[in-house]
Amino acid sequence: MLTLFHHPLYASCRFIRLTFGEYGEEIALIEERPWARRKEFLALNPAGTIPVLLAEGDHAIVGATVIAEYVDETRGALQRQRRLMAEDSMARAEIRRLVDWYLVKMDNEVTKHLVRERALKPLMGGEGGGSPDSTAIRAARANVRQHLKYTNWLAATRDWLAGPRLSYADVAAAGALSVLDYLGEIEWREFEAARDWYSRMKSRPSFRSLINDRVRGLSPASHYADLDF
Amino acid sequence: MLTLFHHPLYASCRFIRLTFGEYGEEIALIEERPWARRKEFLALNPAGTIPVLLAEGDHAIVGATVIAEYVDETRGALQRQRRLMAEDSMARAEIRRLVDWYLVKMDNEVTKHLVRERALKPLMGGEGGGSPDSTAIRAARANVRQHLKYTNWLAATRDWLAGPRLSYADVAAAGALSVLDYLGEIEWREFEAARDWYSRMKSRPSFRSLINDRVRGLSPASHYADLDF
Repeated sequence: MLTLFHHPLYASCRFIRLTFGEYGEEIALIEERPWARRKEFLALNPAGTIPVLLAEGDHAIVGATVIAEYVDETRGALQRQRRLMAEDSMARAEIRRLVDWYLVKMDNEVTKHLVRERALKPLMGGEGGGSPDSTAIRAARANVRQHLKYTNWLAATRDWLAGPRLSYADVAAAGALSVLDYLGEIEWREFEAARDWYSRMKSRPSFRSLINDRVRGLSPASHYADLDF
Repeated sequence: MLTLFHHPLYASCRFIRLTFGEYGEEIALIEERPWARRKEFLALNPAGTIPVLLAEGDHAIVGATVIAEYVDETRGALQRQRRLMAEDSMARAEIRRLVDWYLVKMDNEVTKHLVRERALKPLMGGEGGGSPDSTAIRAARANVRQHLKYTNWLAATRDWLAGPRLSYADVAAAGALSVLDYLGEIEWREFEAARDWYSRMKSRPSFRSLINDRVRGLSPASHYADLDF
C-alpha cells in the first residue's frame, strides 16, 4: 500500500486522496505538519511541502501535480472510461490549467489564508502561530466570490468543469472547495450550478473519507457532511 | 508559427523559450505586462498570468508547466535522444519536482521579488510601481544562497540536474538562474559545480535569444553574456 504524507485541510492533499479514491485504491495516510519542518520529512522532501507520496520502492513523489501525473501514468492510463485525464493534448492542457487554478491561484488568493488564520494558527504554537490576522481573512473572503462565480460559470456551461467527462479538474476543485466548505466560507445559495456540481462530487464514494475529516479544535460547518446542503 | 505571450524577466517564460529553442522550433514572441491586466489578454487567460502559448488552432495553453507537458506530448515524444522528459515515470516525477522547485519555490522565495523590486517597479507606474522595498530585496537575497547550494549539490552529484540526461529540470533551472544572473545576484565563484553546469547551459544554441534580452532601464550584469564568467 502506498503512503501519503498529508494534512486534512490542505486542498492539494485532498486532491490526491480523492484521486486514489476515484481509482478505488486504498492508501495509508500520515498526517504531516509541514510548519514543524520535521527532519525525517525534510530528508524525503527538502522543500518541506506536502503532499508527498511514498510510491513503489519507497520513492518519494513530491507535490500534488507531480503525484497526479505519476498516478495517471501508472494507474489512470489503464482505467479507460474512469481515467481522470483526457487522451487529447489540448483537453489535457485544459484539465491541467484548471488544476492549477484551484490548487495554486485559488490557494494563493483564498484557501491557504483562511486555513492558516482560522484553523492552523491555533495548532502551530511557537512554529508560526499567534492570533488570526483579520486583514488576511477579510482579503481572502473578498476573493472567494470570484472563484465561486468562475466555478459556477464552468459548471453551467460544461457537463464537468473541464469538459464532457469527470477529470482531475473536478477532483482538484472539489478538494479545494471542500476545505472552504468545512470552514463554512461558501454561500452555496448564490451559485446554483456550482452547488449542483459539488453535490454530485460529494455523493461520490471517493468523498467519504473527506466527509469524516475532523480537525482538532475546529468543527466543520453544520452542513459539511450533508449530501443535501 | 506558434505565439508566446511572455516577459523577458519571468523565469517561467524563459523556461518555455529555452524549450522551443532546444527543439529547434521558432516561435513568435509578444511581450505582455501581466500587471496591466489587458482586456484582450484576460480573454485568453482569465487568470491573467504568463506565459500563455497560442498553440495550433489559436488555442491558449496557460502556464509554464502546462505548456511544457503540451510541448512534450506534441513535440518531445518524437525527439528521441533530445527529448527533455524521461520515459520512466519515476524519472519523470523527479524532473517535474525540480521544475516546480525552480519555477515555484525559488520564484516565491527569491526570483520574483528581486525582479519586481529591481526591474519591474520602475516600469509599472500606477499599476503597482513605486519605490523598491528594501526589506523584500534583503529577504530574497538571503535565500539565493540556499538555492545555489542546492543547485551546486545537484550539479556535483549528477550529470545533469535531474539525472543522466539533459531535461526540463535543467531548462527550468537555467531559465530561472539566468534571470538572477541578468540582475547580477549570483556569486558564481562560491558554487563551482553549479557554475560549470550553467556554463554548459549557456553555451547551448537555445540560450542565444536570452543572452540578447535587454530590459528597458536596466542593463544586465557585465558578465551576463559571457560564456566564460
